[in-house]
Amino acid sequence: MQVSRRSQVDPFIVMDVMEAAAKAEASGRHIIHMEVGQPSTPAPVGARAALASAMEEGALGYTVALGLPELRRGIADLYQRWYGLTISPERIVVTAGSSAAFLLAFTALFDAKDRVGLGLPGYPSYRQILRALSLQDVGIETAAANRFQPVPSDLEGQNLDGLIVASPANPSGTMLSRDALADLIQACDANGTKFISDEIYHGIQYEGRAISALEISDDVYVINSFSKYFSMTGWRIGWMVVPEDHVRTVERLAQNMFICAPHAAQVAALGALSCEAETEANLEVYKANRALMLEELPKAGFTRIAPPDGAFYIYADVSEYTDDSLAFASEILDEAGVAVTPGLDFDAGRGGQWLRFSYARSTADMAEGIKRLAAYMAKRFPDHEVGA
Amino acid sequence: MQVSRRSQVDPFIVMDVMEAAAKAEASGRHIIHMEVGQPSTPAPVGARAALASAMEEGALGYTVALGLPELRRGIADLYQRWYGLTISPERIVVTAGSSAAFLLAFTALFDAKDRVGLGLPGYPSYRQILRALSLQDVGIETAAANRFQPVPSDLEGQNLDGLIVASPANPSGTMLSRDALADLIQACDANGTKFISDEIYHGIQYEGRAISALEISDDVYVINSFSKYFSMTGWRIGWMVVPEDHVRTVERLAQNMFICAPHAAQVAALGALSCEAETEANLEVYKANRALMLEELPKAGFTRIAPPDGAFYIYADVSEYTDDSLAFASEILDEAGVAVTPGLDFDAGRGGQWLRFSYARSTADMAEGIKRLAAYMAKRFPDHEVGA
Repeated sequence: MQVSRRSQVDPFIVMDVMEAAAKAEASGRHIIHMEVGQPSTPAPVGARAALASAMEEGALGYTVALGLPELRRGIADLYQRWYGLTISPERIVVTAGSSAAFLLAFTALFDAKDRVGLGLPGYPSYRQILRALSLQDVGIETAAANRFQPVPSDLEGQNLDGLIVASPANPSGTMLSRDALADLIQACDANGTKFISDEIYHGIQYEGRAISALEISDDVYVINSFSKYFSMTGWRIGWMVVPEDHVRTVERLAQNMFICAPHAAQVAALGALSCEAETEANLEVYKANRALMLEELPKAGFTRIAPPDGAFYIYADVSEYTDDSLAFASEILDEAGVAVTPGLDFDAGRGGQWLRFSYARSTADMAEGIKRLAAYMAKRFPDHEVGA
Repeated sequence: MQVSRRSQVDPFIVMDVMEAAAKAEASGRHIIHMEVGQPSTPAPVGARAALASAMEEGALGYTVALGLPELRRGIADLYQRWYGLTISPERIVVTAGSSAAFLLAFTALFDAKDRVGLGLPGYPSYRQILRALSLQDVGIETAAANRFQPVPSDLEGQNLDGLIVASPANPSGTMLSRDALADLIQACDANGTKFISDEIYHGIQYEGRAISALEISDDVYVINSFSKYFSMTGWRIGWMVVPEDHVRTVERLAQNMFICAPHAAQVAALGALSCEAETEANLEVYKANRALMLEELPKAGFTRIAPPDGAFYIYADVSEYTDDSLAFASEILDEAGVAVTPGLDFDAGRGGQWLRFSYARSTADMAEGIKRLAAYMAKRFPDHEVGA
């Protein structure tokens, strides 16, 4: 049997790094994880308690395709709390993580060969999922001057059927201001370009709060997840807010493509919505880690970094050391015992000169990681004048 | 914003029936569920205990994309126990239910516009997922004489890129014999038609055991799930066995499209593999239900049924009563308080004259359901001579 053409997507490099790190650990090495974008904290206590009870009480069979009604209401309440927005629970689609939301959004909005734009550097799975769905991914190289986000002039002449934007972004952690986001949505609207806003890092923000595309327009798809702020990556539970007249279309797709999001994860997510003290405490850890990283990474030799507004990543220009970030990351794993992600995952063109550091783990882990990085860099580039 | 053309799939009717039943229950009515294909039993005790422990012990973050290695080994062992087959764990891909497995299989194997055959009547989501992925679903009307399964002559002149087959089948419960399955696989092989075997109802069988496509060829995709035999529908956990040279392709797709199957469900599934006493006890209930249904449904007026070999469905020809199974099912829900599924879900052409009864719930529920059906039918068709 032959595989299809569209199946030949690139590997998700960070997953390969993760596997290499796991192998190193299995061989007895101690590895500091700065590669994968997930908290080391478990789901909130209240989330796990809710599931522990539910497992004793009911069968946890299929839910309706759009998700448990009380969870959809709970998510609607979150829009009120976070943004002061009144969103009808009817517009909320509970999904198996943001991954399932992308599959639903892309099939609901685009036909084979449609052109969908995405900023580079950006979350690698956007383009791989687009390709697997026979869509054309149109990479838009963003500029440091634009905080690694697309701007309206980037869209000119591109003839895009859709655009996907993330704020805070991965890997840069930069956020779009309200004006910048509004300008982009308006430009898309003027060009018949459907707008998808990936808001998975909302809630994890350090200076000012992230703006939701729903504060600007109802005619957008917004994708979010319990993975990051609520510390529930492996549970695969997220959501999407869609225009009211798209709900039935998305429901039919969800019924057939997924049946429903995992019931256990839905119960846990509902519990997580009431665990603000715990999730805010996690945020305090990221804040401390961010401060530590911004202070210490330059001293270790990673001087070309921009302070992230949100998420838990720092994207570092390492062009002074390498053009091959894959080999560099592999060497750092082997030599320093620190797993980091090559920029190639996020930007096939320029990513050979970049690395992403994730600071989602404990502050002690981050401190140890930086110590190892500094020692490795001092040995590897002994003549390098830091900050040169 | 416009939705895409490919998003305009049919609703999954059984999900709508389920929602209508839930509304009736919310209004205070008591409904017997013969609509949805899921056990009323929870996940096995050992599955839930495994998860309860794991929730206290670790963060349950992302797993590697192909699934927990111990779960993949456990599934490989199942092939040894059930079929005497030695399957390398490397070929096993853990998925978020069979739904995710279909998405992975169809994108791994087919490009936009490829033609994929499926027997009618059959699981409705096959064709809807195919359409959502810009593939062409080619319905093959099967004959009662062929036990509602496709036969090699059905494939002639169809120019199929792929064929998906289920044994035991949904909605008919019929199984393919080893010879019939081998003939189909051989015919596909001769025509360059990729073969996908949906084995989700394996383990739930009444006379002889179901044959896996892997007993005949390694060059097939086999899809299975913990939903049915292991009673874990809402957990969204299943698996796929793929040819060895397809593993890396499927891994890359899975990394990007799903990241991983739900970690909690993977832990629970691993626990479920050791709960044979409980899952076999569930099977005994289905056996009793099947005997009851085969005895009593004809007395209630549903005489045109064939004994199912496996699964927990009976597909009944109700052409003597209606050409509109949707309206008929709706009336049965309203009047008798029994939720059943219209055949239109499984066969858009002929399904107006068929109903599917699911007997996955408790025997007491099934007995009550049949009593209600008999009373309703006697009142609705007073002049009808049963068995005419």
